Amino acid sequence: MKLVRDPVHGYIELDERVLKLVSDPFFQRLRHVTQTGLAYMVYPGMTHKRFEHSLGTMYLAKEFSSFIKRNSEVDFLTTEMISLISIAGLLHDIGHMPFSHTFENVLATLRQVYGEEVIEQGKKTHVIMGEKIISEELSSVLEKEFSFVGVDPVKFIINVISGKYNTEEEKLASLLISSFIDSDRSDYLLRDSYFAGVDYGRFDIERLKRVMLYVDGNLAILKKATPIVEEFLLARMYMYENVYFHSVVGMYNAIATHGIAKLIRESIIEVPLRPKELLKLNEFNIMSELQKHGDEFYIGLMERKGFRRIKQDITKECINADEIRDEAMKESFETNGLIMYHDFFDVPYMEDLGEAIYIYDGKEIERFSSVSTMVRSMKELKKAIVAYHVKVKDRIDKLERMIKECK
Amino acid sequence: MKLVRDPVHGYIELDERVLKLVSDPFFQRLRHVTQTGLAYMVYPGMTHKRFEHSLGTMYLAKEFSSFIKRNSEVDFLTTEMISLISIAGLLHDIGHMPFSHTFENVLATLRQVYGEEVIEQGKKTHVIMGEKIISEELSSVLEKEFSFVGVDPVKFIINVISGKYNTEEEKLASLLISSFIDSDRSDYLLRDSYFAGVDYGRFDIERLKRVMLYVDGNLAILKKATPIVEEFLLARMYMYENVYFHSVVGMYNAIATHGIAKLIRESIIEVPLRPKELLKLNEFNIMSELQKHGDEFYIGLMERKGFRRIKQDITKECINADEIRDEAMKESFETNGLIMYHDFFDVPYMEDLGEAIYIYDGKEIERFSSVSTMVRSMKELKKAIVAYHVKVKDRIDKLERMIKECK
Amino acid sequence: MKLVRDPVHGYIELDERVLKLVSDPFFQRLRHVTQTGLAYMVYPGMTHKRFEHSLGTMYLAKEFSSFIKRNSEVDFLTTEMISLISIAGLLHDIGHMPFSHTFENVLATLRQVYGEEVIEQGKKTHVIMGEKIISEELSSVLEKEFSFVGVDPVKFIINVISGKYNTEEEKLASLLISSFIDSDRSDYLLRDSYFAGVDYGRFDIERLKRVMLYVDGNLAILKKATPIVEEFLLARMYMYENVYFHSVVGMYNAIATHGIAKLIRESIIEVPLRPKELLKLNEFNIMSELQKHGDEFYIGLMERKGFRRIKQDITKECINADEIRDEAMKESFETNGLIMYHDFFDVPYMEDLGEAIYIYDGKEIERFSSVSTMVRSMKELKKAIVAYHVKVKDRIDKLERMIKECK
Amino acid sequence: MKLVRDPVHGYIELDERVLKLVSDPFFQRLRHVTQTGLAYMVYPGMTHKRFEHSLGTMYLAKEFSSFIKRNSEVDFLTTEMISLISIAGLLHDIGHMPFSHTFENVLATLRQVYGEEVIEQGKKTHVIMGEKIISEELSSVLEKEFSFVGVDPVKFIINVISGKYNTEEEKLASLLISSFIDSDRSDYLLRDSYFAGVDYGRFDIERLKRVMLYVDGNLAILKKATPIVEEFLLARMYMYENVYFHSVVGMYNAIATHGIAKLIRESIIEVPLRPKELLKLNEFNIMSELQKHGDEFYIGLMERKGFRRIKQDITKECINADEIRDEAMKESFETNGLIMYHDFFDVPYMEDLGEAIYIYDGKEIERFSSVSTMVRSMKELKKAIVAYHVKVKDRIDKLERMIKECK
Repeated sequence: MKLVRDPVHGYIELDERVLKLVSDPFFQRLRHVTQTGLAYMVYPGMTHKRFEHSLGTMYLAKEFSSFIKRNSEVDFLTTEMISLISIAGLLHDIGHMPFSHTFENVLATLRQVYGEEVIEQGKKTHVIMGEKIISEELSSVLEKEFSFVGVDPVKFIINVISGKYNTEEEKLASLLISSFIDSDRSDYLLRDSYFAGVDYGRFDIERLKRVMLYVDGNLAILKKATPIVEEFLLARMYMYENVYFHSVVGMYNAIATHGIAKLIRESIIEVPLRPKELLKLNEFNIMSELQKHGDEFYIGLMERKGFRRIKQDITKECINADEIRDEAMKESFETNGLIMYHDFFDVPYMEDLGEAIYIYDGKEIERFSSVSTMVRSMKELKKAIVAYHVKVKDRIDKLERMIKECK
Repeated sequence: MKLVRDPVHGYIELDERVLKLVSDPFFQRLRHVTQTGLAYMVYPGMTHKRFEHSLGTMYLAKEFSSFIKRNSEVDFLTTEMISLISIAGLLHDIGHMPFSHTFENVLATLRQVYGEEVIEQGKKTHVIMGEKIISEELSSVLEKEFSFVGVDPVKFIINVISGKYNTEEEKLASLLISSFIDSDRSDYLLRDSYFAGVDYGRFDIERLKRVMLYVDGNLAILKKATPIVEEFLLARMYMYENVYFHSVVGMYNAIATHGIAKLIRESIIEVPLRPKELLKLNEFNIMSELQKHGDEFYIGLMERKGFRRIKQDITKECINADEIRDEAMKESFETNGLIMYHDFFDVPYMEDLGEAIYIYDGKEIERFSSVSTMVRSMKELKKAIVAYHVKVKDRIDKLERMIKECK
Repeated sequence: MKLVRDPVHGYIELDERVLKLVSDPFFQRLRHVTQTGLAYMVYPGMTHKRFEHSLGTMYLAKEFSSFIKRNSEVDFLTTEMISLISIAGLLHDIGHMPFSHTFENVLATLRQVYGEEVIEQGKKTHVIMGEKIISEELSSVLEKEFSFVGVDPVKFIINVISGKYNTEEEKLASLLISSFIDSDRSDYLLRDSYFAGVDYGRFDIERLKRVMLYVDGNLAILKKATPIVEEFLLARMYMYENVYFHSVVGMYNAIATHGIAKLIRESIIEVPLRPKELLKLNEFNIMSELQKHGDEFYIGLMERKGFRRIKQDITKECINADEIRDEAMKESFETNGLIMYHDFFDVPYMEDLGEAIYIYDGKEIERFSSVSTMVRSMKELKKAIVAYHVKVKDRIDKLERMIKECK
Repeated sequence: MKLVRDPVHGYIELDERVLKLVSDPFFQRLRHVTQTGLAYMVYPGMTHKRFEHSLGTMYLAKEFSSFIKRNSEVDFLTTEMISLISIAGLLHDIGHMPFSHTFENVLATLRQVYGEEVIEQGKKTHVIMGEKIISEELSSVLEKEFSFVGVDPVKFIINVISGKYNTEEEKLASLLISSFIDSDRSDYLLRDSYFAGVDYGRFDIERLKRVMLYVDGNLAILKKATPIVEEFLLARMYMYENVYFHSVVGMYNAIATHGIAKLIRESIIEVPLRPKELLKLNEFNIMSELQKHGDEFYIGLMERKGFRRIKQDITKECINADEIRDEAMKESFETNGLIMYHDFFDVPYMEDLGEAIYIYDGKEIERFSSVSTMVRSMKELKKAIVAYHVKVKDRIDKLERMIKECK
């Protein structure tokens, strides 16, 4: 048993079996993958990594499972099953590339702006890579340590992380690790708030743990605790508005994105397709190559010099948003990334056929939207920014005008 | 005016003049200099950087000065002077090299283990480099923005940071930035505790601010607040014992030290002698070169594999400590750093002719040791560890025996 | 200068002039007036008093004024004026009676349930009493210490507290102490959260301070900080939903209300009409008389025995709410308070002709509702409970039925 | 199962059996027994009660037991036994009288100053009363709910609380509830710090829980965690120095003490000898009688008027301390308490034959003093103050002189 001191959850315990996974080079990698990309350029405290977020997600997945077991007497939640669910939490981000989502932006930008043939799946790219790592690199440890009657741990974890669950156990695990209210989101809201030094993402995690139930195959929250759900969704929405979607944070992520895209286009670094390739690629060698070949992008990131933003954001009210995007991407292509378009999109909460937060009053479960008026103010977050290097300042007049006329 | 969100002090304000310094590439550098070397290998939250510590030190230097002005009516503490003192706080670590003190260890190791001719001054190396940066690179901004009647800001700051003060103003500034209880230490105790997630380094900073005085040319603490001094010194001692001098933290710093030493010995990277050279050297390119040329050291740091510690530490009671050190350094040389010796040394508090904490009872000042029995338990911290790569496991028997026999 | 240690704001400074007011028996009284009535029966930590809340409101009124002065360069915000505004904050609750709002409920209950001729003004009763105390008991200190050119401090404070401002100065002060976002609410949200041990009422006070402006005679918030307004209003709404309007908290406040009403109806204690009478009445002698004469009510409060709630609350959807209230009050009268009706009502935010939160984008001010969709989910809080003593359990069938049929 | 929100420990769970005890009038009493006497006159936040401290002690007793079970595999620590130990924690302060230790001072003062024949046992008086309550009032619930093979819960709890343990189980329970490092002290240090708003009493409780062992019939701490013991003992020492033994806190406790003593001497209230009498006596009726009969004492407490302190404290260096005490007590007697002597005494840590903190290195246990130099600075705290009413100011010259000459 080993204890890891964690600023968010106190102590996190790692037993011998978990240690085998944590000691694997593919997990140790996460020590050097920045959790929130370039957000530290605005919130200096946000230098934390995916490593500690992964431990935290494992911790919360175990806590949630244990309380659900107590509240709902779910037979299949054995000690072994709870361990396995927590391991799915531990490994849910194992496929993240350097700078996390920023690298996913690189791939999307290569395709959309530069017309490169890149295989990417938006924000799911790290999930695909994660599946490869789990099945190719971690399967022997997983099979040795976490197999038990009727369960193939590799399949289980992959199904859970990808949301393609087949069994009741997998469904619950998937809800606990990847749904509207889960251990992943709970951890990153608390953790990112802590490191940023803001209150936005705080919510009453101790209460949340105690009001979760498993009813008729669904994850549900006790009705009397409905406000905790609102608090949670709002906490998340505020983190997006104020931190993740901060316009200046966006600009620095765009600079990094186009800088890395340049390195790839010039074949200085390669897009990692296999786990072994990913293991070799890291923020150190990327930044180091950027220093040698990245010119304006390197100076922009390291010295905060050269780049500006068109002060006015492109809001969701903007009627010409699509035209602006096309024009900006064209300019981006023509200036080799010295003009940059960066958009933000998030849906705080939306019910559809399959997905909803359920509320349980002791008798029946209802959808969250039917018990909370708060849902109505959960607005879709959507905006975009245009940034540019001062060198090409003379080229942005048109874009500036289009944005001004936009609303 | 710009506001920076800081998890430790809330908001830190940067006015236009300060922004000119903060925007300088030499200051922006600090965004990528890890505050506590490899401590994050044990305390995962400790990924914070010198950048935010420098802002925090500036903030506290200003707070301390302002309260002292109010408590003691020191004529020379004008608004201009307080700004200048806070700028000395801002710049006190400007000369830190990659991985902070770990790089200083590299230089010492090159000299002591490998007999290289390296200019180094132990833990003062970054101060020397800082003086160069301030006089060569920042002098024009400083002279333009912070000059006022009778004060040359460049000389002032250099004198303050190096502790070679000539005037009363410089002496007070020096005490506020570099003494037993100062803004530097106050910030790093609170900050490192926050990011590690431990309580050891916490103390009542709001109270400390309010009980500082300037009496007869000395910094003094109100007598009734003597316990705050004890609390502060103990907080620092516990941070050393539990965090900075953690044996495993030491091992990882030693691995980094010998890895970087190897890169220098093989002329892959160069010791930065001039500010411009330092600007080019960073943790990214060091780690990137280590990936290419560092072999065991790179794997040790990135995958946490290959290295072990001789479990028993060399304590200060050890009578053969010198012989062990010599033997270990000889082995270190012969194995090209695969056997490593790392020592720790700190004096929590010691009065001598010049230096002491003063206590003021409204009439006279006394030395802290004459009013506190706590001083007696402020023990010198001194220990060392030996670590090695499993490859050379067969060579450590002798060292292991010597350490065992040691006490 | 005296420092008071405060868990919410750190240290609060009291200068000699403020100390004269704080030392007055009418202010010292507040040390024994529970801030949140009987809420401690559910949240045991909530034993805090109006004394510390009043100090905290003074502190924040000063902070807000100082930041507004800096942000908006309001000429009339002199040091003297800021002191006076903060004193209005200090004294805004000086007229609160034992158990705070619970005693106001007593007066309303005497009139509504028992038909007694009592002079009461609902939640404004303590404001009326406060005006008397300020003009009759504190005027000489106020006039001696806080008069300055053109300002009568007694009139000023009374106008500010009652919201009947005449001058621009009084208007700003009134907005800072008694409006949608003010120092009173800011303090009680943070303070009540702290003592309850909940997160609901927390918000980013350091940010709020820094984004307040005074524009065209209105208090306004910088547009880019709009989310802080939402966060604040939601924090307040959650505190109402979860703490102040907790059904069990309501029951204990009802027990206290009817217990005290009984003492007044039996002429054991008297309704304080003059300041001197209020000074003699306190929670100690009320509870002591309740012990002698309060029977069930005393046992209910001290031993938590005898009373029950009709489990189902009367929600705002209830169409027969008025009939239920009338029936419950009739029963209350006939059982001498052993059946009790307690209602809750709050409007989180509503704009009308005079009142709104204003948002400033650097050019013009807009009403909050035109920039935030959140407003739509700020629902009026309205509910009621019926509680009863087990002795009269047989009488509640009808009420229970009416409530059940209600929706 | 019921959850209580606690600001210190988050949520505290009360199961049905525990609820039966918590619902008992003797336990509910504690809701109105102030934890730290009159300390709130200096630290306004300290209005918290024995009720929440008792719940917190129960919580920690359970936590400690559970971790010890895991760390040491103690066979007798069954689920039932852990429940019983936690109940001993719940009830350890059940016998506290109004204002807690202040009422014990009343009894001592009656005997020492006024020569009354009062049965008192200093700071153990509440333990004696607790034994009576447990055996006379709570025995039926305890026997019904907490009996299990071989254990009489009433005897067990009484033996544990009084420290007169007979069995191994009782010894461990006693160490966990009443020793140098126990759940009682752990809770009050954290709790009193929280409500005072100070950092002095904080320590790393999560770490402490995890390093406790049961070795050879002793409670021991893992050697590598020795600093946590130092931190704990220092936290306690600082709370005594800065809070509990604050001279002004002492003065207000002395005023309350002599005021209550007067009520008893005038037969207005009676010393409670039996549980039923204690149930009737509370802070409300004491303060209410003080209002009617307490004159200067009432005004002193409620309006903070009339009393002063001789500014100089009587320190432990004072060689005439005994004579001063005798003189002050004589004066106290002659002025009917308008001159008051109040002393403070605490031993932070002292090893003797029976008692010590043990440290375990995996092989043997050692006494704390043999592994920590900190012990040497753990000084006995001892001081006294003299306070007086301004009415008798002319009588204190002699005492003032004696104190001045004292050192």
